[in-house]
Amino acid sequence: TSSGVFLLQMGWGDLGAFGEPSKETPNLDQMAAEGMLFLDFYTANPLCSPSRAALLTGRLPVRNGFYTTNGHARNAYTPQDIVGGIPDSELLLPELLKKAGYINKIIGKWHLGHRPQFHPLRHGFDEWFGSPNCHFGPYDNRERPNIPVYRDWEMVGRYYEDFKIDLKTGEANLTQLYLQEALDFISKQQASQQPFFLYWAIDATHAPVYASKQFLGTSQRGLYGDAVREIDDSVGRILHHLQQLGISENTFVFFTSDNGAALISAPRQGGSNGPFLCGKQTTFEGGMREPAIAWWPGHIPAGGVSHQLGSVMDLFSTSLSLAGLQPPPDRQIDGIDLLPVILQGKLIDRPIFYYRGNELMAVRAGLYKAHYWTWSNSWEEHSKGIDFCPGQSVSGVTTHTQEEHTYLPLLFHLGRDPGEKFPLSFASEEYQRAVERLSGLVQQHKATLVPGQPQLNVCDQAVMNWSPPGCEKLGKCLKVPESDPKKCSWPH
Amino acid sequence: TSSGVFLLQMGWGDLGAFGEPSKETPNLDQMAAEGMLFLDFYTANPLCSPSRAALLTGRLPVRNGFYTTNGHARNAYTPQDIVGGIPDSELLLPELLKKAGYINKIIGKWHLGHRPQFHPLRHGFDEWFGSPNCHFGPYDNRERPNIPVYRDWEMVGRYYEDFKIDLKTGEANLTQLYLQEALDFISKQQASQQPFFLYWAIDATHAPVYASKQFLGTSQRGLYGDAVREIDDSVGRILHHLQQLGISENTFVFFTSDNGAALISAPRQGGSNGPFLCGKQTTFEGGMREPAIAWWPGHIPAGGVSHQLGSVMDLFSTSLSLAGLQPPPDRQIDGIDLLPVILQGKLIDRPIFYYRGNELMAVRAGLYKAHYWTWSNSWEEHSKGIDFCPGQSVSGVTTHTQEEHTYLPLLFHLGRDPGEKFPLSFASEEYQRAVERLSGLVQQHKATLVPGQPQLNVCDQAVMNWSPPGCEKLGKCLKVPESDPKKCSWPH
Repeated sequence: TSSGVFLLQMGWGDLGAFGEPSKETPNLDQMAAEGMLFLDFYTANPLCSPSRAALLTGRLPVRNGFYTTNGHARNAYTPQDIVGGIPDSELLLPELLKKAGYINKIIGKWHLGHRPQFHPLRHGFDEWFGSPNCHFGPYDNRERPNIPVYRDWEMVGRYYEDFKIDLKTGEANLTQLYLQEALDFISKQQASQQPFFLYWAIDATHAPVYASKQFLGTSQRGLYGDAVREIDDSVGRILHHLQQLGISENTFVFFTSDNGAALISAPRQGGSNGPFLCGKQTTFEGGMREPAIAWWPGHIPAGGVSHQLGSVMDLFSTSLSLAGLQPPPDRQIDGIDLLPVILQGKLIDRPIFYYRGNELMAVRAGLYKAHYWTWSNSWEEHSKGIDFCPGQSVSGVTTHTQEEHTYLPLLFHLGRDPGEKFPLSFASEEYQRAVERLSGLVQQHKATLVPGQPQLNVCDQAVMNWSPPGCEKLGKCLKVPESDPKKCSWPH
Repeated sequence: TSSGVFLLQMGWGDLGAFGEPSKETPNLDQMAAEGMLFLDFYTANPLCSPSRAALLTGRLPVRNGFYTTNGHARNAYTPQDIVGGIPDSELLLPELLKKAGYINKIIGKWHLGHRPQFHPLRHGFDEWFGSPNCHFGPYDNRERPNIPVYRDWEMVGRYYEDFKIDLKTGEANLTQLYLQEALDFISKQQASQQPFFLYWAIDATHAPVYASKQFLGTSQRGLYGDAVREIDDSVGRILHHLQQLGISENTFVFFTSDNGAALISAPRQGGSNGPFLCGKQTTFEGGMREPAIAWWPGHIPAGGVSHQLGSVMDLFSTSLSLAGLQPPPDRQIDGIDLLPVILQGKLIDRPIFYYRGNELMAVRAGLYKAHYWTWSNSWEEHSKGIDFCPGQSVSGVTTHTQEEHTYLPLLFHLGRDPGEKFPLSFASEEYQRAVERLSGLVQQHKATLVPGQPQLNVCDQAVMNWSPPGCEKLGKCLKVPESDPKKCSWPH
């Protein structure tokens, strides 16, 4: 059985099936109607790089190294001056799937480090079309180079130069390129009867948000909605392609997101986290609860709904299971195999941990969530207009100073209060009972936790994408400045 | 063609089909899948009485008299000391449907006045089982009598005495009684091949929220969710009954709500308005945008979705149209016939007016909404803990003083910003263009508006439900105190 994972930056509330009021995602809604909707599914971090590293390793960022210790409870990722990346010691899903004869392709944003040793083809992927970093820019190629786009081992151009993104109109045809890559890859594997793993990690809904000309202005929701519509259309085409080729019953497909919608980019470039609190960068539900759909015609009962607490890390274990493989026995894996949930409707009791950097901010088990630390962002950042919770303010919860609650965690019942607005009374019996259980899980987790070497501490202008492999052929090599390693600055 | 209207107090975000994360409404979701979902449907007022008067008259509360002038922009309703009620001059939907031979029944809360001249059987209904007011209580029958429950012309008991509501556990079997009434009524009409209008206006999700024993504790969402589950189950049974009797293709059924979820009752007794701002009592989207589903197998294409701006007042015009009747030509009707929308997929351009008392607070046309006045509630009330927007605070929007914006309305684009968090820049061309159109609609509306005699100004302890008709038979007549008419106090 092949596996496909669609990974996007989209909020829980961005799909019609999840209550987006413009209801403009007919293909994703159809995918849900034919498959299984996960309503309590989480990413591993409120930011993209660590979530992606977690998905591909099945391990929390604090284990696989995708975190920083430069400041307390800070989110970190892989900008182009980051020195670190995915350690060789980590075993990635595609590396393992190779043992079962899979051909693996990543389309879109890698985000696990851009230096040669971190290249996705050195970590199990056979093919790549996309970029190592976010599509920020345009840059001047002096202070900072434009981000390269790779085909396999070598760059084939740079964003804004060879791959146009019009920041004014929001026009870019990248999703169409990524779609065609996916269709071609699937056709090729089907023709050679090859099991495959396709990781479609596109970024049209990540700021700067973009859509192709044919989708611009088609959404009620503005540019962000145009991007969502194009992605929705692409997902529909990919699923249709699997059906046309007669391999949909042999292909497990999962759709989810690497963090909640970035409300800071709203309204033009930001999505919706539905009824949940805050967004990307935070460990409130809006930052980490994700839309999620499993699709596997003939296996998953149509129209299924699951309240299993799930995680992007489960895609690691589930994909291995589908390939008849075991997770590596020599390390702690945080993901679980979701097949019993998906195929037999089981519910597996397991906690969800919410981290920021190496600080465990919160934990969920069952319907209870305890916050051990609360923080949205600092007053200093907030005063600059950076707001991860626009229009939302819950006293003592969406705090602008880092507040410790270790000895008296803030407790929410996410069934009665999905928006995390009404902390339970400390004096209640319900509080005592739930916190005892949650804090027990935390103790157990911490007692056995071996943090990985932090990869996101050091930044250096010399490591930026000045002269990626293949730049000579294109005449696109830039002069590498002197090395000047520094602690990266992570304000959030 | 018979008509059925389910009217509840439920928020936009309380149904699975509208993105409630516990997804506990399989029957309503099925109703939507078989029928048409309205995503941009509104009640006529953020409070129950005026909305119900609007539904049954097809007219805005400011026209049919269901408003107060005691204070500026105040919500008012019909507590049991209210002197006013539905004027005889108003023509109610059941009155008109009688001309087409319909038998009309109201089950549940009437709320259009409880004095004899306002009795539903004097205004077109043939049958009634339910109460004239909310099920608040219990009262001592000295300061204030318990609310009577009527069967047709006479009371058959009182809440808390003969119809138990356990405030501690939330247990009450009323929804089951209301369900049985509906099933029996439908059976009877089917047997006699009688067209009918059934108005199922139950109140389990209105504080004090209740559910039957078999539903208590069954929801992830607590007591409120238990009530929602019971209502969902009941709706499913009623629709199933129509199908079993073979009359589903001759019965148009509509499900909606009379105001947004009351967030002030959250989390135990309050629902969800999804991604929308604030709740009941306010003219933000959370107060007035409602879940809405049209169901008419064989006529409405299954799985339809409409962005028609709709209103509870449209149920008046649509039901008349289904009966082959015209709306009364001698008065302004605000409702429109939705059949072209439902059957032919048309979109009718029309505004939505948001009133509080006799003040036009806001208007929507297309995707734009302009606020001419903003107010959540007063600082005084807020300081008592009364919060219509818990956890939400949008600077200059969710104001605690009544703020006038007549000359420079606050403008939102509800597609890009359904949560009303980002007012458009006054200087933008988009603002100028949209406000010109909206303010034109307002001028036109105001120029022809003839307000009705306000019914909700005067309260008197003598008019309370001391001795309703039928009390003698039950030995439940109470002594009527001296008349002491006063201006009613409307704090919000």
